[in-house]
Amino acid sequence: MRRTELILTIAGFCLMTATASSIWSVQHATAQDSIYMPQHNTKGELILPKNHSWRDWPYVGSMVTPNALNGGEAPFPEHHVTYIDPVSWQHYKKTGKFREGTVIAKELTRVRAPDGANKDGSTDEVSGTGYFMGEYSGFEITIKSKKLYPKEPGNWAYYSFGHKPEPYNAVAKKQPTEACAACHQASAAEDMVFTQFYPVLRAAKPK
Amino acid sequence: MRRTELILTIAGFCLMTATASSIWSVQHATAQDSIYMPQHNTKGELILPKNHSWRDWPYVGSMVTPNALNGGEAPFPEHHVTYIDPVSWQHYKKTGKFREGTVIAKELTRVRAPDGANKDGSTDEVSGTGYFMGEYSGFEITIKSKKLYPKEPGNWAYYSFGHKPEPYNAVAKKQPTEACAACHQASAAEDMVFTQFYPVLRAAKPK
Repeated sequence: MRRTELILTIAGFCLMTATASSIWSVQHATAQDSIYMPQHNTKGELILPKNHSWRDWPYVGSMVTPNALNGGEAPFPEHHVTYIDPVSWQHYKKTGKFREGTVIAKELTRVRAPDGANKDGSTDEVSGTGYFMGEYSGFEITIKSKKLYPKEPGNWAYYSFGHKPEPYNAVAKKQPTEACAACHQASAAEDMVFTQFYPVLRAAKPK
Repeated sequence: MRRTELILTIAGFCLMTATASSIWSVQHATAQDSIYMPQHNTKGELILPKNHSWRDWPYVGSMVTPNALNGGEAPFPEHHVTYIDPVSWQHYKKTGKFREGTVIAKELTRVRAPDGANKDGSTDEVSGTGYFMGEYSGFEITIKSKKLYPKEPGNWAYYSFGHKPEPYNAVAKKQPTEACAACHQASAAEDMVFTQFYPVLRAAKPK
């Protein structure tokens, strides 16, 4: 084998290895768009994650505070669904801690009542009487970062992209500390996160 | 450069490329244990997925049918949380169809009432009055496979690992068709899946 042929053979093998490795990567990467880095604009506003990517993230819990049980309009109407970014989820499972850079997202939907509802806002469906999910009605994010939010309690900052149907706002300003952090600080079980409502986190925490 | 040195240089570069690619892959792969293949034992029973891996899967919806609103014991007590396996999720987003091999998991939790509850089973929490998640109380799986279940309606088979706190049963027998499929066939909006209750699926379906 001549020197040029030898180089080409090795280079070809190298390319094959890299390609095979990339295909394997892509199979895994497409299964979950797993790494999310929060992006801010030049005004410091948080940009709405693209393509509803939070809906690919691990789910940690949900609750429902129906308007009908809360004087007509609940503070968070009505189903709340909470997600954590995948990298921080892996970190939490290993350490039981919310790492620097943890992102927690909360999406809201109205209760379902297409054909009327009971007085308490519930509906009668084939699996029983209760609260089922209607249309989307809001989206919020909280981020823990000592680097970005050195003065916020627990280094958590809170952003709301609106309590309204989609489309959500494209950007969100950081909420004043008293708007969100005060309540999380007073009542949340663990590092300002309401883990008492999230069985997934309770179960995942290392013993 | 001598021939041996040249080969070693190219081989070294090749190794570096493969290693870098592998590190990238691992970062993605660990973020989500993304590929689940249902496993059956020799009796044809479905084996409980290991390490609660469904809690890493995409969430598609949740509902709550409180015992207190269902004559003391709801058919599915009480919060139901539904997940879809990640590969089938990607397929659904592209095609709006449940592919051969789709796995949908449903995990149940009781409502939270550590310090007593209201008459309707709700509790008063800092975010309002409503239904919050207590402890796990059951786990079920359904699989769509023409190959495995040619005679089942829509080729869906249903398995229950118990309506009880963890640990769930290690294996589950296939449910009789009339136990689950009949109701899904009669009332579910799309291919025997209750997409009318799952905003994530409704939003993800290609227009």
